[in-house]
Amino acid sequence: MSDYKVLKSRTRSDYPYVLEYRTRWSDNDMYQHMNNSIYNFLYDSVINTYLIEHCGLKPAASAQYGMVVHSHNDYFDSVSFPACAELALRVNHIGNSSVTYEIALFEKGIESVKSVGEFIQVFVDRETGRPNIKGMDSVVRKGLERIYIKTSSRL
Amino acid sequence: MSDYKVLKSRTRSDYPYVLEYRTRWSDNDMYQHMNNSIYNFLYDSVINTYLIEHCGLKPAASAQYGMVVHSHNDYFDSVSFPACAELALRVNHIGNSSVTYEIALFEKGIESVKSVGEFIQVFVDRETGRPNIKGMDSVVRKGLERIYIKTSSRL
Amino acid sequence: MSDYKVLKSRTRSDYPYVLEYRTRWSDNDMYQHMNNSIYNFLYDSVINTYLIEHCGLKPAASAQYGMVVHSHNDYFDSVSFPACAELALRVNHIGNSSVTYEIALFEKGIESVKSVGEFIQVFVDRETGRPNIKGMDSVVRKGLERIYIKTSSRL
Amino acid sequence: MSDYKVLKSRTRSDYPYVLEYRTRWSDNDMYQHMNNSIYNFLYDSVINTYLIEHCGLKPAASAQYGMVVHSHNDYFDSVSFPACAELALRVNHIGNSSVTYEIALFEKGIESVKSVGEFIQVFVDRETGRPNIKGMDSVVRKGLERIYIKTSSRL
Repeated sequence: MSDYKVLKSRTRSDYPYVLEYRTRWSDNDMYQHMNNSIYNFLYDSVINTYLIEHCGLKPAASAQYGMVVHSHNDYFDSVSFPACAELALRVNHIGNSSVTYEIALFEKGIESVKSVGEFIQVFVDRETGRPNIKGMDSVVRKGLERIYIKTSSRL
Repeated sequence: MSDYKVLKSRTRSDYPYVLEYRTRWSDNDMYQHMNNSIYNFLYDSVINTYLIEHCGLKPAASAQYGMVVHSHNDYFDSVSFPACAELALRVNHIGNSSVTYEIALFEKGIESVKSVGEFIQVFVDRETGRPNIKGMDSVVRKGLERIYIKTSSRL
Repeated sequence: MSDYKVLKSRTRSDYPYVLEYRTRWSDNDMYQHMNNSIYNFLYDSVINTYLIEHCGLKPAASAQYGMVVHSHNDYFDSVSFPACAELALRVNHIGNSSVTYEIALFEKGIESVKSVGEFIQVFVDRETGRPNIKGMDSVVRKGLERIYIKTSSRL
Repeated sequence: MSDYKVLKSRTRSDYPYVLEYRTRWSDNDMYQHMNNSIYNFLYDSVINTYLIEHCGLKPAASAQYGMVVHSHNDYFDSVSFPACAELALRVNHIGNSSVTYEIALFEKGIESVKSVGEFIQVFVDRETGRPNIKGMDSVVRKGLERIYIKTSSRL
């Protein structure tokens, strides 16, 4: 299977962390579907909820925070307000200071996946805005490792 | 009690319709709290979900739709991502073409109310953008009456 | 004239500070007009730009910041992407710690006003989240006084 | 030069269509920078403004509309409210029904580029939600060709 086909056949069981987000009226654009940019808002939300609740991140105070340096997304099917979305998260790669998240969006009650994307974050020191030579905080790293899935086929 | 005190003492039981909305990362502004404009997004969302699921509204096709002509909001306390919000809805007034909604925002697990506001919508014909002389659609009216609460103290 | 009529007849010359904001694709909702919540985003933006550029506010560092405790808005006419909006700002009241802003939204090239609303902010100490007994910072106060317009007819 | 370096060295002169967008208060997230999802909102806005003003698109009525099937973005540097952003647009590829846009974000008054991304849209018939066997509308195609830039180095 090509990478595209692999992603399009993702199921909830491919992801260790899933949260439900109710869509909002303003998520739909003039074409009656959730606007493509809203997917990124939701990806960002599930990532940061995981970081806060399982990796000790305190957005206003932690010595390091994650800065998004790359994002991409493939949209397979549309979703519309007032549906409930399910956001599913895994980690595909952990480097010295960087992490690659894979996020999928499902619609509650529907089996097939709606979209799959990746965000790459670099953890930087709050004071310098630059990565630390020692890499990311060890508590963050341990939290990320808990949802790391080894993939043979790299995207 | 003044109207302000009445509103500040609202509880979930004052509202017949409640939906849960998970907050999003981008809801917080630079002061680490949900931005005031986001309250309106959520008010709009619970209103339109009720209209679609209980009043027969089809946003892309119904002969009439509701246009917001006035909104106001009192903010009593802050809420922050990644909290879950509970949006509570009632109808305070139904006119010939207009409806006054009262919406409250609670945080899951916390008793006291965070904010209470009102939206006034006027139902207009899609073709003209103007109210119909016969008033709002009767199915919409019946749906709104189901969550109408008679108030002695008008806001 | 009633207050409502006064507001509906506002012109750009009633406001000492005006900024242009290009609307965004996602501002329009399913009814092809800018969603009512977006007005608040824009009101917030012109207020905070004024505070930063003319009142010395540093959102991440100032000892005090403004917390919105009340907002209301009257919508007179719609505006749609890709129009350019002009946001007009004045101050209607300055208290010890609070300020009442009046904001109007115009569309570039169109004379009549689209909406007029008010935001009430209370300046609070960053450390306590409470107003200071000495009131708002004097630099902020001086900045706000420069766009204060005395009104005989209070809203 | 690698593709990444090519993108990072983009200048305004690489793009035939540029619009200015003032940032909004809510664009900044808790880290005091414009949230990564907002870039996509702005990309979407400059694309759709071009489609409406130069390609005859009528979002509510045209027989075809563009559906985003893929997006990606590289973030080189941050931008913060209340800066003005300049959104720069070109077309990198035109297929039978699909178009690949490249969009760059600059900050007014600063030379180096902040981010570069691509959106792929497929034009679909409004009635079926599927591409037309004859491909995209010829007026749209002509409009897109006017900002097409032939690239030797494909991204």
